[in-house]
Amino acid sequence: MVEKNGVVLVLSGPSGAGKSSLINRIADDIGDYYFSISTTTREIRDGEVDGVHYHFVDKEEFEQDIKDDYFLEYATVHGNHYGTSIKPVKEALSKGKLVIFDIDVQGNTAINNRLGDITTSVFITPPSLSELRRRLVSRSTDSDEVIDKRLKMAKREIQRTSEYDFLIINDDLDVAAEVLKQIAITARLKIPTDRINSFVQKWENI
Amino acid sequence: MVEKNGVVLVLSGPSGAGKSSLINRIADDIGDYYFSISTTTREIRDGEVDGVHYHFVDKEEFEQDIKDDYFLEYATVHGNHYGTSIKPVKEALSKGKLVIFDIDVQGNTAINNRLGDITTSVFITPPSLSELRRRLVSRSTDSDEVIDKRLKMAKREIQRTSEYDFLIINDDLDVAAEVLKQIAITARLKIPTDRINSFVQKWENI
Repeated sequence: MVEKNGVVLVLSGPSGAGKSSLINRIADDIGDYYFSISTTTREIRDGEVDGVHYHFVDKEEFEQDIKDDYFLEYATVHGNHYGTSIKPVKEALSKGKLVIFDIDVQGNTAINNRLGDITTSVFITPPSLSELRRRLVSRSTDSDEVIDKRLKMAKREIQRTSEYDFLIINDDLDVAAEVLKQIAITARLKIPTDRINSFVQKWENI
Repeated sequence: MVEKNGVVLVLSGPSGAGKSSLINRIADDIGDYYFSISTTTREIRDGEVDGVHYHFVDKEEFEQDIKDDYFLEYATVHGNHYGTSIKPVKEALSKGKLVIFDIDVQGNTAINNRLGDITTSVFITPPSLSELRRRLVSRSTDSDEVIDKRLKMAKREIQRTSEYDFLIINDDLDVAAEVLKQIAITARLKIPTDRINSFVQKWENI
């Protein structure tokens, strides 16, 4: 039987950094991947699809799942819960997939605590705060209030960039996509600690 | 002025793992690199060249260099000192080179303590202890006693494989070279913490 072991690629960075565009650009070149979809208790918004943008659940269900230790990580932001279910991640890993997370800085810490041996983390940022503001204003999907919130959060998160394996300054989408592709392909070469340990145990006796 | 920042690639693994062959294979594909040459107080052996295999110095000079904080790392093995001088490494890094170290497990720890933010580490091993023995015997450069020492050291070092970013099981040289090339190219994408910090400081004010 062939051992199949997936690996994890964490992408963080402000909304407007270009994470989705980058993933779309590299999707055909990085092999079989699973894009992790978060679960949330916040209201579904216009244009959002359950099971695509998030798994939308009610507070009761979410809090039961916390008790059942069903989350790889979760956080509460402005009274709403957001979390990552373990089960689909485990399934994808067992199939040898590259599991991609679009997740905040706290989420990266939580995933590294659980799956650090197979995780590669990348912080993606626009070249400046003013460029981020320009992008958020020009896509005109967010209210001024939401844009302000996003900018404040971006200022906080960028302070923790050095916790990541790689920083990508997304100034030119083509260049940034090439860099991310390179990182994603190399991420596949990580070997989980338990598999290293079983190799080492056998190594002396083959 | 263009900022130039090099990065570090640490290769560890038993003598006989194929590190030198692998470096030769990928040398043309990984850009400008500097292969770090260690300094040692041990006797020069037949076929060895000063400045190629090691910088050979006497004990007095070595111990003065320790006092002058001239070593990135050093260790004493069987009464002989081995160390890595800081100066050529710093020079190569300032020129934006990939600095490659062929160094033991302790050396990897020391380098990660000093240059962890720009270091990618790879442990390279033959597929089994018996295959390592076969390779060491067949190249017939070492006495039985030296081979025994190398095998014992390999058994100790392989226990610490999980301290490395990547493990390469060098079974097929072509495959192993492809993997190492991929890792070396991605190693170039590391950004030193001080440069990340100065980017973050500017980020809000551009």
